[in-house]
Amino acid sequence: MLIVLQPGSTPADLEAVLARARKLGLTAQPAQAGDRRIVALSGGSTDATAFSDLSCVARVQRVDDAFRLSARDKQPRGTVLDIGGVRLGSGQPLCVIAGPCSLESPEQALGIARTLKQAGVRILRGGLFKPRTSPYSFQGIQEEGLKLLDEIRATVGLKVVTEAVDERTLDLLEPHADMLQIGARNMQNFSLLRRAGKCRLPVLLKRGAGATLDELLTAADYILAGGNTQVALCERGIRTFSSHSRYTLDLAAVPALHELSHLPVVVDPSHGAGVRSRVPAMALAAVAAGADAVMVEVHPEPTVARSDGQQSLYPAQFAELLPRLQAVARAAGREA
Amino acid sequence: MLIVLQPGSTPADLEAVLARARKLGLTAQPAQAGDRRIVALSGGSTDATAFSDLSCVARVQRVDDAFRLSARDKQPRGTVLDIGGVRLGSGQPLCVIAGPCSLESPEQALGIARTLKQAGVRILRGGLFKPRTSPYSFQGIQEEGLKLLDEIRATVGLKVVTEAVDERTLDLLEPHADMLQIGARNMQNFSLLRRAGKCRLPVLLKRGAGATLDELLTAADYILAGGNTQVALCERGIRTFSSHSRYTLDLAAVPALHELSHLPVVVDPSHGAGVRSRVPAMALAAVAAGADAVMVEVHPEPTVARSDGQQSLYPAQFAELLPRLQAVARAAGREA
Amino acid sequence: MLIVLQPGSTPADLEAVLARARKLGLTAQPAQAGDRRIVALSGGSTDATAFSDLSCVARVQRVDDAFRLSARDKQPRGTVLDIGGVRLGSGQPLCVIAGPCSLESPEQALGIARTLKQAGVRILRGGLFKPRTSPYSFQGIQEEGLKLLDEIRATVGLKVVTEAVDERTLDLLEPHADMLQIGARNMQNFSLLRRAGKCRLPVLLKRGAGATLDELLTAADYILAGGNTQVALCERGIRTFSSHSRYTLDLAAVPALHELSHLPVVVDPSHGAGVRSRVPAMALAAVAAGADAVMVEVHPEPTVARSDGQQSLYPAQFAELLPRLQAVARAAGREA
Amino acid sequence: MLIVLQPGSTPADLEAVLARARKLGLTAQPAQAGDRRIVALSGGSTDATAFSDLSCVARVQRVDDAFRLSARDKQPRGTVLDIGGVRLGSGQPLCVIAGPCSLESPEQALGIARTLKQAGVRILRGGLFKPRTSPYSFQGIQEEGLKLLDEIRATVGLKVVTEAVDERTLDLLEPHADMLQIGARNMQNFSLLRRAGKCRLPVLLKRGAGATLDELLTAADYILAGGNTQVALCERGIRTFSSHSRYTLDLAAVPALHELSHLPVVVDPSHGAGVRSRVPAMALAAVAAGADAVMVEVHPEPTVARSDGQQSLYPAQFAELLPRLQAVARAAGREA
Repeated sequence: MLIVLQPGSTPADLEAVLARARKLGLTAQPAQAGDRRIVALSGGSTDATAFSDLSCVARVQRVDDAFRLSARDKQPRGTVLDIGGVRLGSGQPLCVIAGPCSLESPEQALGIARTLKQAGVRILRGGLFKPRTSPYSFQGIQEEGLKLLDEIRATVGLKVVTEAVDERTLDLLEPHADMLQIGARNMQNFSLLRRAGKCRLPVLLKRGAGATLDELLTAADYILAGGNTQVALCERGIRTFSSHSRYTLDLAAVPALHELSHLPVVVDPSHGAGVRSRVPAMALAAVAAGADAVMVEVHPEPTVARSDGQQSLYPAQFAELLPRLQAVARAAGREA
Repeated sequence: MLIVLQPGSTPADLEAVLARARKLGLTAQPAQAGDRRIVALSGGSTDATAFSDLSCVARVQRVDDAFRLSARDKQPRGTVLDIGGVRLGSGQPLCVIAGPCSLESPEQALGIARTLKQAGVRILRGGLFKPRTSPYSFQGIQEEGLKLLDEIRATVGLKVVTEAVDERTLDLLEPHADMLQIGARNMQNFSLLRRAGKCRLPVLLKRGAGATLDELLTAADYILAGGNTQVALCERGIRTFSSHSRYTLDLAAVPALHELSHLPVVVDPSHGAGVRSRVPAMALAAVAAGADAVMVEVHPEPTVARSDGQQSLYPAQFAELLPRLQAVARAAGREA
Repeated sequence: MLIVLQPGSTPADLEAVLARARKLGLTAQPAQAGDRRIVALSGGSTDATAFSDLSCVARVQRVDDAFRLSARDKQPRGTVLDIGGVRLGSGQPLCVIAGPCSLESPEQALGIARTLKQAGVRILRGGLFKPRTSPYSFQGIQEEGLKLLDEIRATVGLKVVTEAVDERTLDLLEPHADMLQIGARNMQNFSLLRRAGKCRLPVLLKRGAGATLDELLTAADYILAGGNTQVALCERGIRTFSSHSRYTLDLAAVPALHELSHLPVVVDPSHGAGVRSRVPAMALAAVAAGADAVMVEVHPEPTVARSDGQQSLYPAQFAELLPRLQAVARAAGREA
Repeated sequence: MLIVLQPGSTPADLEAVLARARKLGLTAQPAQAGDRRIVALSGGSTDATAFSDLSCVARVQRVDDAFRLSARDKQPRGTVLDIGGVRLGSGQPLCVIAGPCSLESPEQALGIARTLKQAGVRILRGGLFKPRTSPYSFQGIQEEGLKLLDEIRATVGLKVVTEAVDERTLDLLEPHADMLQIGARNMQNFSLLRRAGKCRLPVLLKRGAGATLDELLTAADYILAGGNTQVALCERGIRTFSSHSRYTLDLAAVPALHELSHLPVVVDPSHGAGVRSRVPAMALAAVAAGADAVMVEVHPEPTVARSDGQQSLYPAQFAELLPRLQAVARAAGREA
């Protein structure tokens, strides 16, 4: 912690801060930074609260990071996930996850799974339980889709990532999937994060639309602290004033997360773009920015999709995009 | 739904849109708005998806509101909540909810409850289960605080609002509280919202820091659709670039929510301000803007509070603030 | 300046930072803040740049404020402006500035001026040169309105505030007004700010929709540094994702600016609200939050206004609002 | 324009809207969109104002775009700029603009110009007049740098882009440069935009940090309306809550602007990233997203740069980056 005193603070002010620190059992080192007195604190676990009655204190700020287990220095070489045998992370080939927003029926699900398998995809995305903004929207085919996941994995041979929306659905999905997604709206659903910490599958944690990177990494810490070391972070767009897209895809989060954390970084260009025509550009940009994986919505017939159809690619578009993604990965200097 | 065609669209483009509408069983009315062709749609439940392959379509937009049950026209005179006998809503006196962020011990909880009761407060806030950004922060006294709630209600005679963080804690808290809070991070925890729809207590639903008013109202619809008509909406600050405060309190949401919805509007000035010195100004502003209630953090000894101490008022500050809040309510033209 | 080293930094890393500081002639004090090494710097005018090649440096941050002349400690008792005899600032009665967005004709301008004078207003707002987002919008009556300003001041007896959009228009307006406004879009038009520093009139500096308070105050420093000490700061709404209003009025900026600066704070609730029905609530809230003045758009016939009509009050609405503003000011504890 | 009536509007409400439209000489077509009555308007140039007194009106919205001359349909094949013989725009090879934030001295300027020329760069960036947030920061070498521009162009053979901060500096710079930049803070300095419309050089218009794409394109219209058809649009980061970078680079603006406008799109990854280590990733991402050009800050000795040193690349880093940019351009499917 660091305390910054008000402009014009006096030696008596400084002494008041030091006395408080002593009372709290903290080690305090005063110093001068420009025209401000500061006090560096260590040795305890206090926060801004304990100094909040001293009017000579301009602010109290963290100097270290709030997140711990997800910090880069805990695993300097980077964590690599194992998703049913497919590897995702630092030094691995670009991983492309694709599939519909929702699994809607056996025909739709198995059809698109086969198409994508043939195109070279190894991991399918597809939701059974849909966290929908409106209670009047399609909520997913839910329990009845569990056997579909088994069939896709057994028959088509794809790995599957699907979303758990609460502890109950995580319990239900765990035996039927290869990776579980925690969605943006649940990034700070701490009960779910704690349950995910006990999950035996890798977890794809999406950044909340109003969340900072610190908050994303601290949320990841909830999972890591539970003992599950297999966590990937997913940028999918944040809330800003910029109204031309559904969300603003914050691609600078990719190099930033790679500096701050050892966890692999995935980008979902579909939710950020919001419309089909702009998804390929954003997927290519994500790869060029260094994403370890991209996750793209593809639907066999987007105009009849029960969710997110307007941002889902046609299979032919995706087939055209995939080799370009790999070419960009190589051009940017990595394996594809 | 409304379809806006691209600039320079042709009669053939228009016909393609109309044909698609017919195929979907929709009633379509074309019209001209400035230099753009538009098509108004009604009679079905389709969305943008179904037109997303037509390149002549510039955009498809909702014209009506996504929320329904919380819309003003469902209850033009405004909903009034009954919180254990205290009334909150349109035409009622200003309601001031106060108390510590967390209930920490019997001494702290009962002490502050008695102090606030004496000051004229009728509803105490106080958390047992705390949704904390970091897993390393104090998580509340949890189950062991349940009997404290009973004691505050029975002995001190205050009504109590406290936060449920998941379905399990809602079950636990329901017999011991007068109102349940769903926090900003859980605003789109749809499992919890559905459970709250079956709750027999009024619910205080906080706006997520990255949520629009439409999303807040649609989240309220999840609760209302479950049969619980007693919902209050709470503005507590949104995420913006403006870094001088912890969040940006969006007070214009107060008159906006009153226009859009029949549900009462509460403002939490403490989380928006983030520091004690600015809480009174924002509480006064909230009342002047027309909030039906304000909810203020007060702690008997803020410098040793286990959460949110730096934004908690001292009891003496609150005692000085309360009559000013009531005076502003009267000056702005309402009962206090 | 403060340097924060990376987690896991070594004594050699620290020595590298100290050596660089010595080379730059700076006084450097190392300290420990939690698990991070920090170095406090003083004695020179360097910035982050000079340490940007040291990979052991996590970040370099300012500790003091970027603004100087506008800082509270330069004038602890608060600056009071003299606007042609009307006083605006700390300890003065609430100041209500009102008038149309644009002065459109002698009839409109003199008519509304007389109406507002009668209602008790002492300062009229009204633009001649309009900075319009679109080149196709009404750009103001420009030079031909100069004599109107004279007439309002001489005949009606109101003081006048009007906007200068560049150095040339500031030259033109200076002899005809009592206060000059620099609009939100020009908050960082540094040529204009420098010219305003040489102006003999008080200046109303509006916060840019994308500007932090630091940037607003540093912009004010450009004017103060030129010798003009009569500057008021105006909050008028910022750009956020919250789409229910035209801008998000950041009322917490009022107490924050009062803590940070000695300059008076004005709030423009009209641009923030964007629609007439919500202006009164936001004007009342601004006063309750402690604004030294509010500036409200009023038009004799809003439906034919040539700019901002939808957010302009009718004269009768304003007449009803004014005493409520004054009552709220008194209720919140100040003169009105 | 489109009028949306309130939920529950009556036939009489509709008639009131139609009557108002008739009075204004507008053609009005009523239609039904879901449960809302709407009225499409054409034939006049009115706006929301004229209907703002009708309480049955929920909102009035534009259907067409506010910008005109910059709209894609005015030049469907895309505008190509000629910057002293170097072509920038649709179908042209990737254009890489590089150079220091400020030209600081003949040695620095000519040295880096020669280095970049040798690396294959054809256009140098470099500022003489610097719009600095703080009046206490280096403001550029100003007039004395004009002859340096001449020397770089004549001796080194590079084209030059440099920033004009007001009408006076535009006059000064016009004879000495190949392209003029209007910075983010001046995007809505309409006097400067009008002057740029009369300029004989191409103009690089940067998006304001708080500006929407509509506002950027409408600002471009000011220049185009003056007769200057040579305008490029530059994304350089917007203001959001996301605090890990100086600004949030909104790369989805690239495909969006290409859909909306015929003007070439440039990305400045340096200001968005804010720190050197993240600039290459964002430059590569910008190219993959389809930018027609990228503009990168490169300084011969960043640690002694007088502005923006911490985000400037070393020449060796840039030399390593340039071929990767070109490889990504080819991989994404275009000439490089």
